[in-house]
Amino acid sequence: MFRKEIKVTDCTLRDGGLINKWQFSHELVRDVFLAVNQSGVDYMELGYRASKKMFDPKEYGPWRFTTDEDVRKIIQDAPVNMKLGVMVDIGRVEEDDIAPCEESPLDFIRVATYIHDVDKAIALANHVDSKGYEPFINIMAISTANEFELAQALQQIDAETNVTAVNIVDSFGFLFSESTHHLVKIFQNNLKTKGVGIHAHNNQQLGFANTIEAIRKGANYLDATVSGIGRGAGNCPLELLLSFLKNPKFNIEPVLQVLEDVFLDLRKEIEWGYLIPYMITGTLNEHPRTAIALRQDPKNKDKYAEFYRTMTTPECFSDE
Amino acid sequence: MFRKEIKVTDCTLRDGGLINKWQFSHELVRDVFLAVNQSGVDYMELGYRASKKMFDPKEYGPWRFTTDEDVRKIIQDAPVNMKLGVMVDIGRVEEDDIAPCEESPLDFIRVATYIHDVDKAIALANHVDSKGYEPFINIMAISTANEFELAQALQQIDAETNVTAVNIVDSFGFLFSESTHHLVKIFQNNLKTKGVGIHAHNNQQLGFANTIEAIRKGANYLDATVSGIGRGAGNCPLELLLSFLKNPKFNIEPVLQVLEDVFLDLRKEIEWGYLIPYMITGTLNEHPRTAIALRQDPKNKDKYAEFYRTMTTPECFSDE
Repeated sequence: MFRKEIKVTDCTLRDGGLINKWQFSHELVRDVFLAVNQSGVDYMELGYRASKKMFDPKEYGPWRFTTDEDVRKIIQDAPVNMKLGVMVDIGRVEEDDIAPCEESPLDFIRVATYIHDVDKAIALANHVDSKGYEPFINIMAISTANEFELAQALQQIDAETNVTAVNIVDSFGFLFSESTHHLVKIFQNNLKTKGVGIHAHNNQQLGFANTIEAIRKGANYLDATVSGIGRGAGNCPLELLLSFLKNPKFNIEPVLQVLEDVFLDLRKEIEWGYLIPYMITGTLNEHPRTAIALRQDPKNKDKYAEFYRTMTTPECFSDE
Repeated sequence: MFRKEIKVTDCTLRDGGLINKWQFSHELVRDVFLAVNQSGVDYMELGYRASKKMFDPKEYGPWRFTTDEDVRKIIQDAPVNMKLGVMVDIGRVEEDDIAPCEESPLDFIRVATYIHDVDKAIALANHVDSKGYEPFINIMAISTANEFELAQALQQIDAETNVTAVNIVDSFGFLFSESTHHLVKIFQNNLKTKGVGIHAHNNQQLGFANTIEAIRKGANYLDATVSGIGRGAGNCPLELLLSFLKNPKFNIEPVLQVLEDVFLDLRKEIEWGYLIPYMITGTLNEHPRTAIALRQDPKNKDKYAEFYRTMTTPECFSDE
């Protein structure tokens, strides 16, 4: 038995690009696109849309910008079985970076926001909505959100936008089952007319588990990435999620094939997944940036005990 | 807040030895022993106890046998802060392999059994009990157990033994939260005078998650291994479990230190953890042996899609 309302969003390239500044070749992106397109996934987020005035295309690869032109080069003449989209950050995209939807190969745009920027997120979601895209909002760093503010923000999104769903984003990989249940309930209680989704991180090997827990409590919009690729500890693996969901429309074979053909080599070039420094920041409800910096330091990257001591020494974080 | 009844069993060397026929040096075992001994863990299972008449010590390392003499070499003069023990398999150990407890450095013995061997398991548990050891029983391959037989077996263990606890062993890594909850309830309903435990496998990245779910439903005996080491996809990682449990007696620093000092090198020699072939057998509720064989074949070990097709082709498994 499956729940037909469940929709899966692949964000392999968007989240994976956080590791390598979106320096994926068109060939790789095409391979991933074709695999996801055959897998029965509902939405595919190809990258970020951002202004070239704000990010240097010499430093950032094409999927930091995900122009309509580049998307067309990926699709070529393949029949597209899913909705395609991009993520936008507040203040990093300009009005004329987004063409009207009918002129674009894209169908949806997700706005990523912190709780304190929710008014800006609503404005941006309404802007992309007015251009004809299906809008979504992702609320990042959810494990540090003040619950009173969160409820207010969700009520405002519910009243003032047409977003399809709002995603719980466990940026720090801090949640476990009970905290996930609690958040899904807060989202449901305050989003009377919108769906609830989840974007889980794998710092504590709970990315897939927390996605299951969100499903159990009624979340229908699920993020996943091939091989769990994503910054730091990565995400809920698409191959696990699709094999768990019982909807016969899902097919994991193309995902396994691209995993074997593309991701084994990619893993030799860039690192993601459960590693002790990410576990440590996750259990401490901290942003992974300290762990990412540690992993980039060849001399210290495996000094786990010392990193743990640094991260748990009160003086380093004292507010006094 | 923590639940004081919770007891953690480290089975790093016993389960990890399934990968390399227990060929761990005494130096490595001493390092792991000292780290676990400092971590606040309650029980440490050092290996299997087995008869040297049945297993050739030229082929199998010392921790297949875990003699009292070898255990003494590991302890030396360290004060032991936890209970030490071994696992025994039915029919692989003889009466005179087990000295009276007062002559041994060991405190507990766990009997591993399949559901159909429960009468033999009870006899063996009672035998080690009569020699003075604290007895436990682990029921393997729990995801294929017939529930009527399982209830009967548990009632019999409850009535006929003095075991401290009976462990749910998810040998195939098939369980998720709801099936774990269901099994904990069956164990609790039928074990009126014994504890309930869990030994989870990580085929679906749910080893730690299922351990949390068992805790939530009342299981108090928890198995884990440093770095999740164990055959195939491995186990619930001790570092995650200890950081989740709030009992101040637990200290993850020595675990992180040994992980860094010993397990990083060990991982270059032997393989364990989440890998697609183990995921596939896990989702199909199959023994991992086909996946283990695949991983030992250098030419085919990463042919995920083909392995999936083979494993899901009905002809291969037809009972007709």
